[in-house]
Amino acid sequence: MYEGAIQDLVDELGRLPGIGPKSAQRLTFHLLAQEEDEVQSLINALQAVKRLVKTCEVCGNVTETEVCSICSDPRRDQGVICVVEAAQDIQALERTRVFRGRYHVLGGAIDPLSGIGPDQLRIRQLYSRLSDSGITEVILATNPTIEGEATATYIARLLAPLEVTVSRLASGLPVGGDLEYADEVTLGRALEGRRQV
Amino acid sequence: MYEGAIQDLVDELGRLPGIGPKSAQRLTFHLLAQEEDEVQSLINALQAVKRLVKTCEVCGNVTETEVCSICSDPRRDQGVICVVEAAQDIQALERTRVFRGRYHVLGGAIDPLSGIGPDQLRIRQLYSRLSDSGITEVILATNPTIEGEATATYIARLLAPLEVTVSRLASGLPVGGDLEYADEVTLGRALEGRRQV
Repeated sequence: MYEGAIQDLVDELGRLPGIGPKSAQRLTFHLLAQEEDEVQSLINALQAVKRLVKTCEVCGNVTETEVCSICSDPRRDQGVICVVEAAQDIQALERTRVFRGRYHVLGGAIDPLSGIGPDQLRIRQLYSRLSDSGITEVILATNPTIEGEATATYIARLLAPLEVTVSRLASGLPVGGDLEYADEVTLGRALEGRRQV
Repeated sequence: MYEGAIQDLVDELGRLPGIGPKSAQRLTFHLLAQEEDEVQSLINALQAVKRLVKTCEVCGNVTETEVCSICSDPRRDQGVICVVEAAQDIQALERTRVFRGRYHVLGGAIDPLSGIGPDQLRIRQLYSRLSDSGITEVILATNPTIEGEATATYIARLLAPLEVTVSRLASGLPVGGDLEYADEVTLGRALEGRRQV
């Protein structure tokens, strides 16, 4: 549609998730109208994130140091590990302020159709973390999707011989949700997981 | 929420139009997972667009040369100028393949509340383009908004003493639209602008 540098930027932005051709065009013209230094600070942020951000040696979280701030925090419960698919999931769990243990990032979920098996995930690293320290519980907090459930089942079986409690996040009605609009699988899980009051 | 370089990039991306904090976070983690050279090609595209893209000396369109490809195309009708608010509007009009004249980009619309008066727009340049060449018609293709209408009215009055036909894009029902759901202003315009068949 456009030519040269403008179309190149439209193409590059359109490759990002959730940004269609129209949004990419809108963003491009927004950036064209911006002052040089505002675009430069976006460029600097892009460069910095690739240069500085690493993977935590212990848990696989994103970090700018060798070991992330959660793993290196002595106030965190050293006995519990919460297993998540992605580093973003850690922030979601941290916001709850319910969990005070440490994390382990798998880097995805088992998905044979996309060629992702246990070996592509950080499952071996999880196993070795468990073998050499006083960890008593592993909470499997993979997504409640087919892939997430398969991953949780795989890890639960793998850890069964070890002396650790393995638990899974509860499935059920989201708080503030409406029974009438809940899908049947969620409502079925909510029934199965009912608790005495 | 995050720290250091990650939060910086989330903030920078969140400043772009149509990108909220959630999308900014999603984009940041997408870029983190990308290969170095893919992010570098986005950075290159950002730098190139700021370095190469200029404003056409004649019409105000975006261009990488002194004069844009439309203004320098001898096959375009030199007698008609279509006045638009923004360079993006040119692409929308070009897609129609109906207009074969040249353009003039105002760089916005008159909007006293935002402090944009006629002097902030490229209206003087339009006036001088008209005075020294064989232009016979000016089509006012500003947006059908209050600001766009005000701008069109202003320019129409300014050009009234000159010997050029001044026209305005037709307002009416969008093709494929539904009479029942048309707003009353649009439907009123469609009635006023009715044509004998």
